[in-house]
Amino acid sequence: MQILIAEVKSWMYEAAKYIKVALADNNLVVCTKSDRTDLVTNIDKETQNLLIEKIKNFDPTAKVLGEENDQNHLTDLTGRVFIIDPIDGTMNFVLEQENFCIMIAVYENGQPSLGFVYDVMRDMFLWGGPSVGVYNNDCRVNPPLNKAVEEGLLGVNAGMYGTNYVHAREIGNLAMGVRMTGCAGVELIALILGKRIGYLSHLAPWDYAAGGVLLETLGLKMSNVRGEKLNLRDREFFVAGTPKAYDEILEMLRKD
Amino acid sequence: MQILIAEVKSWMYEAAKYIKVALADNNLVVCTKSDRTDLVTNIDKETQNLLIEKIKNFDPTAKVLGEENDQNHLTDLTGRVFIIDPIDGTMNFVLEQENFCIMIAVYENGQPSLGFVYDVMRDMFLWGGPSVGVYNNDCRVNPPLNKAVEEGLLGVNAGMYGTNYVHAREIGNLAMGVRMTGCAGVELIALILGKRIGYLSHLAPWDYAAGGVLLETLGLKMSNVRGEKLNLRDREFFVAGTPKAYDEILEMLRKD
Repeated sequence: MQILIAEVKSWMYEAAKYIKVALADNNLVVCTKSDRTDLVTNIDKETQNLLIEKIKNFDPTAKVLGEENDQNHLTDLTGRVFIIDPIDGTMNFVLEQENFCIMIAVYENGQPSLGFVYDVMRDMFLWGGPSVGVYNNDCRVNPPLNKAVEEGLLGVNAGMYGTNYVHAREIGNLAMGVRMTGCAGVELIALILGKRIGYLSHLAPWDYAAGGVLLETLGLKMSNVRGEKLNLRDREFFVAGTPKAYDEILEMLRKD
Repeated sequence: MQILIAEVKSWMYEAAKYIKVALADNNLVVCTKSDRTDLVTNIDKETQNLLIEKIKNFDPTAKVLGEENDQNHLTDLTGRVFIIDPIDGTMNFVLEQENFCIMIAVYENGQPSLGFVYDVMRDMFLWGGPSVGVYNNDCRVNPPLNKAVEEGLLGVNAGMYGTNYVHAREIGNLAMGVRMTGCAGVELIALILGKRIGYLSHLAPWDYAAGGVLLETLGLKMSNVRGEKLNLRDREFFVAGTPKAYDEILEMLRKD
């Protein structure tokens, strides 16, 4: 386990260095995917290739589920599976040059084993798993306070908030405020460090897998908005929170 | 001018140190003002007192307009006026321990002279004015690209976005995305550095004065949502942006 942790961290630091050099060289080719705001760059793709090459060298039998390059479907979760997002928050990467993350989750036979979420420009690396605990760089992370919705900030997807989908705006109004950063990794780090009471969004497996391992390790909760286990297959309406806030949010959603 | 700049920067660095020690000592007493989400802490008040003492020692004739401690009204803008926000983003200060700014603007006979916006935890200090240019720490800031709304991110107030007040949600939908950080200083820094095409919010003079000096120095635009000069007196619905995005937004608002 320690060898795997050290390996994954070294790959991600190498990927981060690659990304930072590309940013400094202003070496970005931006394309759209499903619509004009769904972006991908050459750097997303090259970073995913770099990570996959490292994975295959380390463990040729491992499977990979990743955002780019047609790696985005996997029906068989037996054995070791790496779920990777080379750049989570590509829009921020392109327009802000910050507030994006590299993320890798390791699943063993369908069970969460390790999560790694690296906020590159802040140099904030959250990692860990159920057997080792959670760390922020080298510092152990304790479970955050179990705050209610009304005691903290809600991270929320703009579309869901704007249309009040699954009561997102009402829940936001109960909270102390809402925040939109445009990056699931940034939101999940904030939740893990006690800076949010919850997060409501529409996420693919590579958006929540790594952060999800960490937050569940700390006793925080996540599911789809019907309270069902996330399926690691489709994009789903996602809810995560402190145990108290998560229960409050699910109770509101069950009334429908 | 150089002496005044050096003085103000030294006060703000001292205030930041004071704030960071208070955070490290977990020495916060939080109170509410107008409603449950309008917060003030002992540190806001003490920091404002520290800044006012520095101002009064430096220039006993100067006037002060500030968020806390009943310094929040000023009808006479003749002479030198310091407009100060000891902690912009108090909610973030309390709940995130980051994403807050110390801000000071200097006006001379009603004219903007200098602006200072310090994102304390990022150690990112934007300062300058029409006679000296704009700097990010020691690095000269050039005017950002003159992007249209559809080319970038819009910073927006949650309430205005949620209710589509002054078309805030429609404008957000035209943009590449919306961001909500809960701090005017953070948003105005992002606009100045080209990471936003605009910012729509509901702001008091101490929220926009310092950032406003900087953005106007760089040729960016700001006004109330009717396109009128901000009055430095009341809380107003505020719009700022690149020249192109600002004009597009004002055109949408004029249709009403």
